[in-house]
Amino acid sequence: MPTLYHSPNSRSSRVIAQLMLMGKLDQVDVVVVDVPRQDGGGRVDPKNPHPEGKVPYLVTDDGEHVRESAAIMMYLDELFGQPLSPKIGDTKRGSYLSWMVYSGGVLEPVLVADFAGFEHPALTGTFRGKAEMGATLEAALKQGPFLLGDELTLADVLLASPFQWAPQFMPDIPEVKAWVERVSAAMDGAAVQAYDAKAMELLSTDA
Amino acid sequence: MPTLYHSPNSRSSRVIAQLMLMGKLDQVDVVVVDVPRQDGGGRVDPKNPHPEGKVPYLVTDDGEHVRESAAIMMYLDELFGQPLSPKIGDTKRGSYLSWMVYSGGVLEPVLVADFAGFEHPALTGTFRGKAEMGATLEAALKQGPFLLGDELTLADVLLASPFQWAPQFMPDIPEVKAWVERVSAAMDGAAVQAYDAKAMELLSTDA
Repeated sequence: MPTLYHSPNSRSSRVIAQLMLMGKLDQVDVVVVDVPRQDGGGRVDPKNPHPEGKVPYLVTDDGEHVRESAAIMMYLDELFGQPLSPKIGDTKRGSYLSWMVYSGGVLEPVLVADFAGFEHPALTGTFRGKAEMGATLEAALKQGPFLLGDELTLADVLLASPFQWAPQFMPDIPEVKAWVERVSAAMDGAAVQAYDAKAMELLSTDA
Repeated sequence: MPTLYHSPNSRSSRVIAQLMLMGKLDQVDVVVVDVPRQDGGGRVDPKNPHPEGKVPYLVTDDGEHVRESAAIMMYLDELFGQPLSPKIGDTKRGSYLSWMVYSGGVLEPVLVADFAGFEHPALTGTFRGKAEMGATLEAALKQGPFLLGDELTLADVLLASPFQWAPQFMPDIPEVKAWVERVSAAMDGAAVQAYDAKAMELLSTDA
């Protein structure tokens, strides 16, 4: 059984949401760990094997270590027969890979800069800004209800997650807002929240 | 035939290098376009369909648009039977996905910040810094000559590329330096340079 290192209300909560959506949460060993928080609380947890103390982190049955949300989510989807992604050779495969890499490579750096309230020509030259990010999502969502068209995929689960977690960073674009609502409706947000509330309790008892 | 939008001596040169390594350069339609350059030269090329005028950019036979180097490289490797990556279900698959996402999600933001000479707690909190990036590469390369072990894969082609292009950003770590040399030796760097020199000529005639 693979081991997922998870901290409640963090970037790893989207992996929990994915596992719930696939009905596979019982087939992964989830270890709840602490992480340093934005408010100064939390800590690097010695139980977490991630070299920088971050989550999510996954150790496979073969003992391979996997870091970065998109990679862990793609791996788990593949492990369970790709219920949430186009197979190699499918028409949408290229778009799928594009969105999965765009998430960590563009969307996150843009949102982190926005959150911290800073701009720098090297950053905007490389990653562009919030306007381009919004336009990119908008263009796709004008073609269909989800990023790859008619069906919800892992790309939606991953890319909608920052806006579910922090709606204040959502671009003020009707198509994007409606999409985030659509993704949330397809997932069991209440179950994820309940799971994380319990994990948080465990964490405070543990400390 | 898929169409690759390429600009010489840019981030898309690594895709040319990959295609040469796979012996598939003749099976992709390469369109040479201009891009804005660090030195203020170049321009957003109207021939380039990338919404932000960047490269690489790929349009598949099905008309799907694929952006981001890692996604385009994974797509092309899959299109030609995965000569450079572990198949789904293989032991190294998780590590492969991890490195491919790490490239755009951590290595590039860290190098861009380093290049521009700035630091910000939000950036280092999210992406960490050059020391952690060096340590991550070093830890892997202490296990074997390439990132996934004994064989060169797409992960090496992608992650070594910034250090081939700008050796001054290479971490001062013997294992990392030896790895970049090893990757370069496995590839036909002279052929890529000759290709790009010709593309650059084409570009200046074109303008």
